[in-house]
Amino acid sequence: MNNKNEKVFPVEGIRLSSIYSGMYKKKRLDLSIMEIDIKSNVAAVFTKNKAKSPTIIFSKKNLKQKNPKYIIVNSGNANAGTGVAGYNDLIKYSNEICKRTSSCIEDILVFSTGVIGERIKVKNIINSIPTLLKNFHKNSWYEFSNAILTTDKVNKICSKSIKIKDKNITITGVVKGSGMIMPNMATMLSFVATDLKISKKILSSLLREITDVSYNMITVDGETSTNDASVLIATGKSNINYNSLENKLKTLIKERLKEIYQTLAKKIVEDGEGATKFITVNVKNANSIKNAKNIAMSIANSPLVKTALFAEDPNWGRILSAIGNSKTSDKNLPNLEIKLGKMLVFKNNKLYSKYKEYMTKEYLKNKSIEINVSYNTGVYNATVWTSDLTYEYIKINANYRS
Amino acid sequence: MNNKNEKVFPVEGIRLSSIYSGMYKKKRLDLSIMEIDIKSNVAAVFTKNKAKSPTIIFSKKNLKQKNPKYIIVNSGNANAGTGVAGYNDLIKYSNEICKRTSSCIEDILVFSTGVIGERIKVKNIINSIPTLLKNFHKNSWYEFSNAILTTDKVNKICSKSIKIKDKNITITGVVKGSGMIMPNMATMLSFVATDLKISKKILSSLLREITDVSYNMITVDGETSTNDASVLIATGKSNINYNSLENKLKTLIKERLKEIYQTLAKKIVEDGEGATKFITVNVKNANSIKNAKNIAMSIANSPLVKTALFAEDPNWGRILSAIGNSKTSDKNLPNLEIKLGKMLVFKNNKLYSKYKEYMTKEYLKNKSIEINVSYNTGVYNATVWTSDLTYEYIKINANYRS
Repeated sequence: MNNKNEKVFPVEGIRLSSIYSGMYKKKRLDLSIMEIDIKSNVAAVFTKNKAKSPTIIFSKKNLKQKNPKYIIVNSGNANAGTGVAGYNDLIKYSNEICKRTSSCIEDILVFSTGVIGERIKVKNIINSIPTLLKNFHKNSWYEFSNAILTTDKVNKICSKSIKIKDKNITITGVVKGSGMIMPNMATMLSFVATDLKISKKILSSLLREITDVSYNMITVDGETSTNDASVLIATGKSNINYNSLENKLKTLIKERLKEIYQTLAKKIVEDGEGATKFITVNVKNANSIKNAKNIAMSIANSPLVKTALFAEDPNWGRILSAIGNSKTSDKNLPNLEIKLGKMLVFKNNKLYSKYKEYMTKEYLKNKSIEINVSYNTGVYNATVWTSDLTYEYIKINANYRS
Repeated sequence: MNNKNEKVFPVEGIRLSSIYSGMYKKKRLDLSIMEIDIKSNVAAVFTKNKAKSPTIIFSKKNLKQKNPKYIIVNSGNANAGTGVAGYNDLIKYSNEICKRTSSCIEDILVFSTGVIGERIKVKNIINSIPTLLKNFHKNSWYEFSNAILTTDKVNKICSKSIKIKDKNITITGVVKGSGMIMPNMATMLSFVATDLKISKKILSSLLREITDVSYNMITVDGETSTNDASVLIATGKSNINYNSLENKLKTLIKERLKEIYQTLAKKIVEDGEGATKFITVNVKNANSIKNAKNIAMSIANSPLVKTALFAEDPNWGRILSAIGNSKTSDKNLPNLEIKLGKMLVFKNNKLYSKYKEYMTKEYLKNKSIEINVSYNTGVYNATVWTSDLTYEYIKINANYRS
């Protein structure tokens, strides 16, 4: 959890404003506007769910045309499954921003998260916009990270200041999400900004590359939602141009960016609905990156593996069965090895002779658990992060709307 | 649940024998042998899990060579993840049957179901075989249906007598399974026998065709196990030859066989681990049978849909989102319709104007619920049966080994 004491570096060129607009019965922040300096470049990846929210259709279209000046985002209602009416609703409140800031509709991105299928409270948003536009502050990341939450128990921020050529550059990001978490975007919204200068094209390819090893490698329940998006903004205010840096520094920045995205991704898993365990699944030596990912995901999405880990039961047969179920091109299993943490469990197609169940039982009492699989058919690796499956998950999802 | 009062027709040519061999701490039937008349033809389909149990490897190989004379099946231990040692174990007790019945090893099929990764108690099985072989009875289907159960709460039998040309033919079958249920064979074993005469080739194609509309259309938790098999036996004792019947009668028999398999399949779902609801997902008018199945399975496997139905919450947005997540070739959703039971919920890309939530809330109080989706892009339909996701599922699977 990020508390107010944790250092969050503001990003020059980004100002934020959040408010309670009345989306929830309980009074809490639920609506934010982010103001983005006009010289910024912005990239985004969007949900692959075919039942896309109008917000995704609108934002995708606008981002293709130009860089946004404002991002408006609400929690409490996803404005999904709402069709033309939902699209018209978001146009109405976007126009309110246009009117008051002399912007055009293409200058705005809209994101929503919350219950699917209900009309959004347009009036509440329109009534809140004047106050929001008056209260921008570069230090309001904490409030912003809270305003976007839904079933999350904690807010999620990651912020770094990095020395590049005797200057400091800043990367700060927030994310929301705890259920409906699955690769190809989950029920999550992510906003990360840096004061680096990066061309739109390179920013976009950087975001895709990093998403594949962060948000696309976490799963809570195998669900992908209608509203997900991950936005990366480069304001250029630091006057350091990424494109013209030497390769060594480019690699350094890419690594830092990856760390930030992986930190945010892991925070989602840690806050996974009802989670009591943080599970890392490492698959090594598969014959393709795709197979490595599929095997890791098959383990990470198995309700039987997840309930066994919740029970702290080293029922490794379920891991073996999940590997056997994975979508790979192999017809049979190769000579695979399964480890719980560092303890070898399965090798040469049978239980390892020196395996001691009481030791793995002890190991599974930890909050953080590693499942290590070596597939021994190639050189490709993948890591997936997930949580266990608990009574609490059922409770949260059986009560979401009530 | 099948109780002793329900009529179970014996199948001439099939005799059964069951015993407590000590696989469980609790005294219960856990080991059976089925004796099959030598003139019978036998077909089977097996799990697609790549981590196959040695029992599956052994039985598949034998069935290719000839028709079995004996099937031995135990619950309490899956003999999976046991490699060469597990294979040798099953050879040992199969040899015991050979020795005592003058059969060869290829005359035997072996099936096991239960915990994965533990060595099977060979001695217990060997010690039980003499008694089993002395106690065959054609009326012992009820005991057989009990001996194969694991986490199942009820036994599952379906038996019919059908009039064909003034004679009666009989079809009787049993199945086990309640979790790890997913298409392409689940944690289930199924044995169905008929006294019809059917060639091995036609029996095999019949079984495949019927499996695709029965066991391959149910899902409890999206898991597929290491040990599943479905065996269909035609003893020929009725002297009615299926192959030489007129087409009308062939169709009639096929329909009856389909009904029996669908009844057994639905019994698995009704007994789904922790299930409180029986859910039928009908997808109509998709542009291919594969798309229709994928859409229905995406809804049926969604933990969010399943927890909402457990809570009797008409959260139809989750159904929409699950449809959006389905693996189909469509890039966007066509003009789809979603109904809960007979009540139209979603149409023209939005909530149906006359939708009344209090009515669907009332409807969801039923034990049996229908989700009806019309995709409106073609003429292909699919039906999938599933259960809800409940606290009890977690409890059962967190405590399975303890």
